[in-house]
Amino acid sequence: MDDILQLTLLYDFYGELLTEKQKQVYELHYQNDLSLTEIGEELSISRQAVRDQLKRTEKILLDYEEKLQLVSRFQAQKKAVQEMKHIMEGLEKKNPDASVVKAIAKMKKIADDILS
Amino acid sequence: MDDILQLTLLYDFYGELLTEKQKQVYELHYQNDLSLTEIGEELSISRQAVRDQLKRTEKILLDYEEKLQLVSRFQAQKKAVQEMKHIMEGLEKKNPDASVVKAIAKMKKIADDILS
Repeated sequence: MDDILQLTLLYDFYGELLTEKQKQVYELHYQNDLSLTEIGEELSISRQAVRDQLKRTEKILLDYEEKLQLVSRFQAQKKAVQEMKHIMEGLEKKNPDASVVKAIAKMKKIADDILS
Repeated sequence: MDDILQLTLLYDFYGELLTEKQKQVYELHYQNDLSLTEIGEELSISRQAVRDQLKRTEKILLDYEEKLQLVSRFQAQKKAVQEMKHIMEGLEKKNPDASVVKAIAKMKKIADDILS
């Protein structure tokens, strides 16, 4: 998986376990797209201190995942739902029977909610 | 949800964030079914100390869920998959067509894996 995507997922899952300061620096960089220099200026700390802070935050998030494996568990579930959706689409193509089409539409809606 | 079931889920999700001591006392009580007195004897601490330790552990697990909401997120997904399975079963009853039955069997297997 793409590193940034992976980090976004980790932050989505475990971000609430970070300190306010850690969240602030993470969000300024990864969500508001500020450079290390810009964050340093905003917080009156050096560019290097910002970099260290971000590295430490990334390590904390990775450590949580190493212990809990919840992102990978969640991803595995999504993959399984994606697979079901694929089977639904195959079935939809083969069986234009109205009751099948209706049931599949309902299931696809539920699947899409899970995948969104 | 039943308190013990809820606690089991919390421990399943967040248990790895506890200390070895906390895990030991939790498991002796909730998995090996030892009484507080028995645990106290085994660890040479008072029954009250065991009780305090368990209460503290439960509070830690509840605090993680309050912050992260991952158990409730996973439970919501399982409920959605259960709903899909219900629709599959309805479809199965109405449509004895072989290709439908086969596709549903595949999807049910995936759903059961998620629900297990």
